[in-house]
Amino acid sequence: MNAKGFAAHSATDPLQQFAFERRAPRSNDVVIDILYCGVCHTDLHLARNHGGFTLYPIVPGHEIVGRVRAVGENVTRFKVGDMVGVGCMVDSCQHCQPCLKGWEQDCVEGSTFSYNSVDRQDGTITYGGYSDAIVVRDKFVLSLPDGLDPAAAAPLLCAGITTWSPLVHWNVGAGSKVAVIGLGGLGHMALKLAKALGADVTLFTRSTGKEDDAVRLGADHVVLSNDPEQMKAVAGRFDVIIDTVPYDHDVNGYMPTLAVEGVLVLVGYMGPLSTPVNAGSVVRGRRAISGSFIGGLRETQQMLDFCGEHGIVSDVEIIPIQKINEAYERMLKSDVKYRFVIDMASLKA
Amino acid sequence: MNAKGFAAHSATDPLQQFAFERRAPRSNDVVIDILYCGVCHTDLHLARNHGGFTLYPIVPGHEIVGRVRAVGENVTRFKVGDMVGVGCMVDSCQHCQPCLKGWEQDCVEGSTFSYNSVDRQDGTITYGGYSDAIVVRDKFVLSLPDGLDPAAAAPLLCAGITTWSPLVHWNVGAGSKVAVIGLGGLGHMALKLAKALGADVTLFTRSTGKEDDAVRLGADHVVLSNDPEQMKAVAGRFDVIIDTVPYDHDVNGYMPTLAVEGVLVLVGYMGPLSTPVNAGSVVRGRRAISGSFIGGLRETQQMLDFCGEHGIVSDVEIIPIQKINEAYERMLKSDVKYRFVIDMASLKA
Repeated sequence: MNAKGFAAHSATDPLQQFAFERRAPRSNDVVIDILYCGVCHTDLHLARNHGGFTLYPIVPGHEIVGRVRAVGENVTRFKVGDMVGVGCMVDSCQHCQPCLKGWEQDCVEGSTFSYNSVDRQDGTITYGGYSDAIVVRDKFVLSLPDGLDPAAAAPLLCAGITTWSPLVHWNVGAGSKVAVIGLGGLGHMALKLAKALGADVTLFTRSTGKEDDAVRLGADHVVLSNDPEQMKAVAGRFDVIIDTVPYDHDVNGYMPTLAVEGVLVLVGYMGPLSTPVNAGSVVRGRRAISGSFIGGLRETQQMLDFCGEHGIVSDVEIIPIQKINEAYERMLKSDVKYRFVIDMASLKA
Repeated sequence: MNAKGFAAHSATDPLQQFAFERRAPRSNDVVIDILYCGVCHTDLHLARNHGGFTLYPIVPGHEIVGRVRAVGENVTRFKVGDMVGVGCMVDSCQHCQPCLKGWEQDCVEGSTFSYNSVDRQDGTITYGGYSDAIVVRDKFVLSLPDGLDPAAAAPLLCAGITTWSPLVHWNVGAGSKVAVIGLGGLGHMALKLAKALGADVTLFTRSTGKEDDAVRLGADHVVLSNDPEQMKAVAGRFDVIIDTVPYDHDVNGYMPTLAVEGVLVLVGYMGPLSTPVNAGSVVRGRRAISGSFIGGLRETQQMLDFCGEHGIVSDVEIIPIQKINEAYERMLKSDVKYRFVIDMASLKA
């Protein structure tokens, strides 16, 4: 099956038009005409091989919204014309303990990711959502609720579930006190979702001028994390802190703002925390430093349904695919409120 | 009330005989004739002012077992002649959220510790269990179950509760897989308690020769943590790791041995972890680094009752108080299996 998209061919090449093959649909596959695809920091990191494990050519994109073009003979959950989403994963082993629990992101044998991953069925390299169509195993396809703007819903498939999963896992609801560190793609979704779940929500930020936007997005309070007085005023306050900072940073300053048994959840950074973590900050008050990585299929569907009921989508700037390289440069300068989404109609231009 | 004990008068002085005053019992106080007192690493750290906050003269000791000599008029839980224990705390505010939940160790206003602490009622400095008697608020006195050797039970008041609290908090029971890092005072209690709770128990150690003792104490498996093959063989295995290491160390090597949603619990060290913690190790699999600090009064009593039912005590070496300085030197060389306990009858010698 012929497909076209945008790919990078090396760490230094800009993304450009790329023609490639998608597999012929298997009996449990869904063929999706892609309408929109969100642009995640991970796309940029992998396109530029920041992790050292990029397989070129790479077609990024894992915040995919589209319409079902065709279904395999064993597919029952979807029919032609349905609006659907695909996130960061397109397959997993389906028989390990995490998979059986619905935590496909923690598949012991390794999930198959939507791009830059070896397909576990046929050994080919997966290509992502910066393209006109995709073929995905039915279990990894999500239903998009009616009434959500499809372009603005695309980032729910990664930024949405990444922040939703820890909020729900740590039982955030009415009466919870939640703080969010950082106001970017992940942070703005964390504010919206925590607020809709009923929490009292605080944004930690290092710069002034974000108050109005933060409040509009769901924050009840904004705390300047580099102001010792403001930090002292929230000592012992938060049940959950969602830390969306995507680079090495010092978490120690936030720990005393956790309530007893509170947890700081890293969702934006996977490298070494070079500032020594103070063991006392977790020993006293049984606080914890944990993390969370996207989320399973079942909870992703629950998140989409919740967003449908509450009218929650991402704040997006829609771009044609021809502007993707420029969008990457702007992302590096945090010059986006709060997520770029590619309108895939531009691919036909 | 006249008391005698052993005290250090400076960071470099050995402990020596010391006569001092205990308060006259208040209406809710219990007067205890001390029979035995365990020797904890904290005693040594504070006697030598390693933390920089020692108030001299200091009478250490917070693993106290004794017999009730007298009770105040409002005391109903104890009567003269009862065998009782006192641990690390002798008072707390009793009205903050943690205190109301039974977590007096996390008292927002600060617990009053058994020694080197400012008594919240009268402003005096508390003196610990290296002495012939102590006066303690009834709520902070524990009942010692019948049938436990009182000398060997003393370390339950600190080493016991410090390892019990995280095991119970993280729901260790039949089917749980628990690992313990380090085989000292805390580690040997963690093995015994985890085993008695029904867990499959592994000891992580860096040195050979501990296998027989580990198995005798409750370990089902012993893993050499500096052997990459042995570490690989236990990847993804443990629900809970109790990390008893009392100094700065690298936790990263243990994290991949945690199951998905597993937790590493620091109980022996409160300083900076100078080897950078890898954020990815908590993000992937929603693992956590947490800690635990002694335990509340209610759970301490539950632990003692459990030990009474299961016949669990510490492995101890009983010493006269005149050997306390020598015992400190031997503790520094880990030359004790597994806890020194002072026989307070020696104080009359």
